[in-house]
Amino acid sequence: MMMTYQNITLIGGGTLGSQIAYMAAYHGKEVTIWGRSEASLDRAKKRVARWQAAVQDYFHSSDAKAEEAKAHLTYTTNLKEALQGADLVIEALPENPQVKQDFYRQFAQLADPKTVIATNSSTMMPTKLADATGRPDKFLAYHFANTIWQGNTAEIMPGQKTAKDLPATFVELSKEIGMVPIMVNKEQPGYVLNSLLVPFLDAGTDLWVRGVADPQTIDKTWMIATASPQGPFGIMDTVGMKTVYEINRANPDEAHQAAAKKIKHMIDEGKLGVETGQGFYSYPNPAYRQADFLK
Amino acid sequence: MMMTYQNITLIGGGTLGSQIAYMAAYHGKEVTIWGRSEASLDRAKKRVARWQAAVQDYFHSSDAKAEEAKAHLTYTTNLKEALQGADLVIEALPENPQVKQDFYRQFAQLADPKTVIATNSSTMMPTKLADATGRPDKFLAYHFANTIWQGNTAEIMPGQKTAKDLPATFVELSKEIGMVPIMVNKEQPGYVLNSLLVPFLDAGTDLWVRGVADPQTIDKTWMIATASPQGPFGIMDTVGMKTVYEINRANPDEAHQAAAKKIKHMIDEGKLGVETGQGFYSYPNPAYRQADFLK
Repeated sequence: MMMTYQNITLIGGGTLGSQIAYMAAYHGKEVTIWGRSEASLDRAKKRVARWQAAVQDYFHSSDAKAEEAKAHLTYTTNLKEALQGADLVIEALPENPQVKQDFYRQFAQLADPKTVIATNSSTMMPTKLADATGRPDKFLAYHFANTIWQGNTAEIMPGQKTAKDLPATFVELSKEIGMVPIMVNKEQPGYVLNSLLVPFLDAGTDLWVRGVADPQTIDKTWMIATASPQGPFGIMDTVGMKTVYEINRANPDEAHQAAAKKIKHMIDEGKLGVETGQGFYSYPNPAYRQADFLK
Repeated sequence: MMMTYQNITLIGGGTLGSQIAYMAAYHGKEVTIWGRSEASLDRAKKRVARWQAAVQDYFHSSDAKAEEAKAHLTYTTNLKEALQGADLVIEALPENPQVKQDFYRQFAQLADPKTVIATNSSTMMPTKLADATGRPDKFLAYHFANTIWQGNTAEIMPGQKTAKDLPATFVELSKEIGMVPIMVNKEQPGYVLNSLLVPFLDAGTDLWVRGVADPQTIDKTWMIATASPQGPFGIMDTVGMKTVYEINRANPDEAHQAAAKKIKHMIDEGKLGVETGQGFYSYPNPAYRQADFLK
């Protein structure tokens, strides 16, 4: 019988932390969300309410099922309490190495030696973080996409010191909480998904910035050729312009800097993508979902 | 009233030449296919018969409509005859600069000065070819994807000497023959479609060659995240392994050379993709179209 995790603690109740927490609770796990302050827990609770509505809508599930999920969720600002009895801790803190390392050091002191730990970091490789946890063999990266009930990939990426049999337990866990496990065999910045997505969005951005074609033409070309529901600019609107800006800004070459500048201009105009109703397209009914877009 | 083209000549009846010819004829154009020998015209006729069946199947059109299209097609090995009275000549010869230049020089001597000319080249920029046509202002690149009734993009890319009003006539023509016109404002190797597709396929290939994840996992990740019907390896099977091999072989860096080697091995085993029934997947029912693939 494979080891599974019943008591799960989320460190951080931000966008992804709260989504992971809710989906685990929805599938019957006992979940604790730790937040650094009552204010941050209040925000986490509001997010959970939003995910509850979205998940219920997506799965057409009953009110009873949605309420039951909520009953599996506990909130605390007390780290010792949050870690007590946890089978698995998932760290979903901001992408700041210092913040993560500080947490891991506290975790190493407070958590039961048997407690397994995972990071949801998008950018940091697990081998770099492993030692601070005090149990590098019981640590790996476990990465979720956004709106995880829909984009339900859970990327499992072991580090150099991860125990050989640990990834299999996350494959099992992923299935238990409605995720599709994606085994990443080697440490890879960007895991699988962002390793595909970033060069693809880059290619679209480059054509736009250099004036080769406009965003709608570029999206149309991709959508016709691959029968996909979105092209690169539709995807960027969904990802959100702030993230797209950070990706471009981080790359020092001329094309990326020119792209960052154009995207910054959009952000300054309040065009953040789907979340503000305006990005490359207007929402909730973007042009690329109209019947005549591919004509 | 916008200028259109009624009498169209295809130079070359290969895969794309014959598809363009058939679709133009299907939409009521008078089309001539020029081939260098009776044997090549015989092959072109066989291809046309195949496209006729595929197009009829795709559009659920009547036998009468399909036969009518055939009646608009003429075949000849006589270049002078092929060019006589042509409003538009579309060059769809092999991707060999010498072969194309030789043809253009003959064309320059034989064709009426009013005849417009376009190249379907995937790789050569129109400005380089323009002078040989004897009418650089009446010349541009007009690029089709494969199985053009389905992936019906027609990329229109002017060169530096193309007359300003010429692209608009190709926008009109594209609509007349069932294509979606894609305006490429500047000369861009790869036009729009391949400028997106090549980095995307590269990214997938790189993850596979370096052992980060297997093709099925990579495809699954992309398909879940973007709700697309294929991932990079499904697309490579559709494009065909020989083309994928050439793209990798042409790039001297280590990753591409390693990829070319792995793909060469597949080709040697007869795994050419959809066309041989075996590539990364088995056809006609590839795993990625099974209901449980995304679970």
